[in-house]
Amino acid sequence: MMAASRRVGFVGLGLMGAPMAANVARAGFPLTVFNRSPHKAAPLKDMGAHVAMSPMEVAERSDVVITMLTDADAVGAVLAGDDGMLAAAGEGRISLDMSTISPEQSLALERLVEEHGWRRLEAPVYGSTGPAREGTLGILVGGDAGVLATCRSLLETMGSRIFHMGPMGAGAVAKLAFNLLVASQFNGLAEAMSLAVKGGVDARAAGEVFLATAVASDLLKRKVGAIVDEDYTPAFPLKHLHKDLGLMLQAGHALGVSLPATAAIHETYTGARSRGLGDLDSIAVYRHLAELAGEGAGR
Amino acid sequence: MMAASRRVGFVGLGLMGAPMAANVARAGFPLTVFNRSPHKAAPLKDMGAHVAMSPMEVAERSDVVITMLTDADAVGAVLAGDDGMLAAAGEGRISLDMSTISPEQSLALERLVEEHGWRRLEAPVYGSTGPAREGTLGILVGGDAGVLATCRSLLETMGSRIFHMGPMGAGAVAKLAFNLLVASQFNGLAEAMSLAVKGGVDARAAGEVFLATAVASDLLKRKVGAIVDEDYTPAFPLKHLHKDLGLMLQAGHALGVSLPATAAIHETYTGARSRGLGDLDSIAVYRHLAELAGEGAGR
Amino acid sequence: MMAASRRVGFVGLGLMGAPMAANVARAGFPLTVFNRSPHKAAPLKDMGAHVAMSPMEVAERSDVVITMLTDADAVGAVLAGDDGMLAAAGEGRISLDMSTISPEQSLALERLVEEHGWRRLEAPVYGSTGPAREGTLGILVGGDAGVLATCRSLLETMGSRIFHMGPMGAGAVAKLAFNLLVASQFNGLAEAMSLAVKGGVDARAAGEVFLATAVASDLLKRKVGAIVDEDYTPAFPLKHLHKDLGLMLQAGHALGVSLPATAAIHETYTGARSRGLGDLDSIAVYRHLAELAGEGAGR
Amino acid sequence: MMAASRRVGFVGLGLMGAPMAANVARAGFPLTVFNRSPHKAAPLKDMGAHVAMSPMEVAERSDVVITMLTDADAVGAVLAGDDGMLAAAGEGRISLDMSTISPEQSLALERLVEEHGWRRLEAPVYGSTGPAREGTLGILVGGDAGVLATCRSLLETMGSRIFHMGPMGAGAVAKLAFNLLVASQFNGLAEAMSLAVKGGVDARAAGEVFLATAVASDLLKRKVGAIVDEDYTPAFPLKHLHKDLGLMLQAGHALGVSLPATAAIHETYTGARSRGLGDLDSIAVYRHLAELAGEGAGR
Repeated sequence: MMAASRRVGFVGLGLMGAPMAANVARAGFPLTVFNRSPHKAAPLKDMGAHVAMSPMEVAERSDVVITMLTDADAVGAVLAGDDGMLAAAGEGRISLDMSTISPEQSLALERLVEEHGWRRLEAPVYGSTGPAREGTLGILVGGDAGVLATCRSLLETMGSRIFHMGPMGAGAVAKLAFNLLVASQFNGLAEAMSLAVKGGVDARAAGEVFLATAVASDLLKRKVGAIVDEDYTPAFPLKHLHKDLGLMLQAGHALGVSLPATAAIHETYTGARSRGLGDLDSIAVYRHLAELAGEGAGR
Repeated sequence: MMAASRRVGFVGLGLMGAPMAANVARAGFPLTVFNRSPHKAAPLKDMGAHVAMSPMEVAERSDVVITMLTDADAVGAVLAGDDGMLAAAGEGRISLDMSTISPEQSLALERLVEEHGWRRLEAPVYGSTGPAREGTLGILVGGDAGVLATCRSLLETMGSRIFHMGPMGAGAVAKLAFNLLVASQFNGLAEAMSLAVKGGVDARAAGEVFLATAVASDLLKRKVGAIVDEDYTPAFPLKHLHKDLGLMLQAGHALGVSLPATAAIHETYTGARSRGLGDLDSIAVYRHLAELAGEGAGR
Repeated sequence: MMAASRRVGFVGLGLMGAPMAANVARAGFPLTVFNRSPHKAAPLKDMGAHVAMSPMEVAERSDVVITMLTDADAVGAVLAGDDGMLAAAGEGRISLDMSTISPEQSLALERLVEEHGWRRLEAPVYGSTGPAREGTLGILVGGDAGVLATCRSLLETMGSRIFHMGPMGAGAVAKLAFNLLVASQFNGLAEAMSLAVKGGVDARAAGEVFLATAVASDLLKRKVGAIVDEDYTPAFPLKHLHKDLGLMLQAGHALGVSLPATAAIHETYTGARSRGLGDLDSIAVYRHLAELAGEGAGR
Repeated sequence: MMAASRRVGFVGLGLMGAPMAANVARAGFPLTVFNRSPHKAAPLKDMGAHVAMSPMEVAERSDVVITMLTDADAVGAVLAGDDGMLAAAGEGRISLDMSTISPEQSLALERLVEEHGWRRLEAPVYGSTGPAREGTLGILVGGDAGVLATCRSLLETMGSRIFHMGPMGAGAVAKLAFNLLVASQFNGLAEAMSLAVKGGVDARAAGEVFLATAVASDLLKRKVGAIVDEDYTPAFPLKHLHKDLGLMLQAGHALGVSLPATAAIHETYTGARSRGLGDLDSIAVYRHLAELAGEGAGR
């Protein structure tokens, strides 16, 4: 068990990372943070965290270094770029990577850190900004059970459900599989609603039907509301789901798994992003499909 | 309001139709039934229903004639084929069609019955055999509000939620849009599970994660269980969803709505059906995808 | 062998049908024609053809009746609708149907005419308006070899290559398979050109490369030119290829053949048609894709 | 102009690279070669080439270094890995990369070599092993016109058509766009033939029709023959086209170009490769589709 006195680093204070780091600080872990845009570190400084000047400095002051970044290239750069974490003196640190990346990328990052005598744990999360603030994320861990044991109390400051999915890569693939379900519910709702509305059914009435049935998930409930209210405030920006769709397919191709509907969804999201909807919520794919189909009822 | 003494006919005593007709009989409506395979009418005869020798005889003994059939061709044949219902003397009957068909087909059937002085109400249902037995189906009505009013007490013997979606065609398209959501959840789960399992994650563990999240609908819960237990007993046979996918796309093309993921799902279901899985439950699409990807973990 | 004195009827004087009928007239066959829009029959009247007032009158004056119509519903209406051909007295006529329809529809039409003592030959064609005028179409025949023998000299007035593909349905499916190749070359060129242009390559330069390679078919040559010149004058209207894509997929589903790329192309064409490009040439799908991707180079 | 005395290096002596390097040697360029499997260098040694022990040694003995490798990772490793070319002393060399990679990867490799004072030219080729032997490949160059001028006589030993597509990335994207056409013709033929055969048409008869029409490219001619003879000897192995399909889509996503049919084809190829067809010719996708659809005619 890792005592709360174990020193923690955190790199990546975005929409998700900032509240996650705040929960780590609140739990009493000695915390060093770094972010490319330094102003995002200010609230954490107020909570007692040390703000480092480089990823290397973060590593020098930490036993476990959390990364919560956009993609594997960003994680690689923070680890092995100029003033990167792996340039810090000493071995034995744990790279606790909570970013959503592909299993192949995760295995490559494991090889990278092991060359420097570090250990890696992958721990991507599900849940959006609300659960990130409340410390109730789900965490999908891949890697060594012993390493997980030393990080468990730390993970519990951020998440309420911690699943050990298997060896390195299993956490990454479980996260992508979950996101595949998310994408299929977003896109499924968008196609269903486009068909209904163009067929002369009011969006609100269609939504009422959908939510009365066995397909009504919490996600669907929220997104029916977003479509009816035309409120595309990003909880999960479309460009991020677009990126994740690419990772799912990359994993599928590496593993030999055909994912025909996911591939079709990826192309639709490419179109939506190309038409400027990337910063809206992922359900804005409805607006894209509806605009392609033309306004109003079709018959 | 239609008094329970109004005479009702029922054609199509399949997995869904038989329990629906039984609920009509139980509610005290004078009932005449017909089915191509006559032995399926026996239980209803025991409940007091008259078993007719032809659709025409059903019509002659009824004010409202319910059809619950496989497709629009079957409905058309029962109406206008040899000894069809429209050959019965007299006008003013209501054709209450609860089959799942396309809006174009529904409008064509309306023109057909109106030429004979009948009225049409479309009323496809959602829910499977359980709700059919319990009289708790959802019913998606399209057509004239006055005609619906005269049929409401009859519909309430079969369903607990009755939605008036709009004019003729709106009920049909709402049903197809709902089924599109069903298909996207089935296929999404199958693709997600294939990816996870081939990536080295146990199906049970993956399912546990999925069901802990915001995508967990009642449908997903049931179907995760089916995959884990490899139990493909048909609640909704794969060949029926395959047929409905064709109707969704047909409606989309008529209305000018692109449905790229639905089209990809349709092709996957074509493959699954071609490989002999048509009589299993619709979630057997998982078996199809998993077999294509090869056995066991991929890395 | 049918003597040139055998009496011929022709229904459907559209872009293709009119020049085909003219070739029949030129060859000396006694000809009766009918078209819903009667003014299209005027040039044939000048060539000596009799212009009938109904399909029934065409049949009464003919031994072989050619249909060249939009779809199977139109063929069915001309045969069995009001004043339809099958209402003509007498048996033994040949229904020579040159329309592009599905094998299932063709077999259904065969059953229909055989009930009236007629015989059916399916004979869809490939080639566009040029070969139609010159009598150099390709003709894909399905049906009885003996019936084909009696029609061969008639077919030779319209086409220079006559293939007997097999029994009823084989001609229809061969035509759809050929059109599938056409659609994949149109759409493939559109996707390739969109990628090249958005990647900073001039359309003319990309076209020059494509035409220097082993993929350069005559079709590709013509359509590269159309894209470079932005000339979408319809040789084969987009809405017709959209309809044919639906027939290909319908045939695939009936036969148990998955056609994933064809299904994706169908959805793209649905979008193109929905955005008002249906009356342009089929290669206007390039404009659709390019507009979705935004103007100019992307990097 | 580069004199034939300019010293040339060549790394990557695979099916394509070996005959290309032989043509360079035959033209009299002083040649140093390297291959991971050294026995493949033996024929070139017999032609007078020096066989180096490492990529670094190749660079030290060359002014222009050609790479003809599987993917961008392999090119990156040969340049910047252990004993890589960029470790050679001195600046001003030209990295002439003839591998098929994405425009993004090509631009990243340009940044890499420029950091070491080298220049990059991308020059992927079209044509298979026959034209490689005969020196009649097509070469799609991207990069600086001046650098191309110094390499032109060298390129002319390998190819008979040299296209300057534009700046760095334009050659890569033109190659991917060309390969997209190849993939759409392979897959289009496979889908068309599956439909025809399952519809009861003999493969040879269907092929005869296809080759009589405007879609008949040289590629189609060869591949119709391969299907009819069931001869899947690899001219272009399926696993290579599968890899290239991934690059096309990656380029499309980076540029904002939706490629729905290409994405569907990619998934089909993933399935074909997963079922063990990766080392056969790319047209073996027909065998995959036909096996999915079941044996023999379908009706």
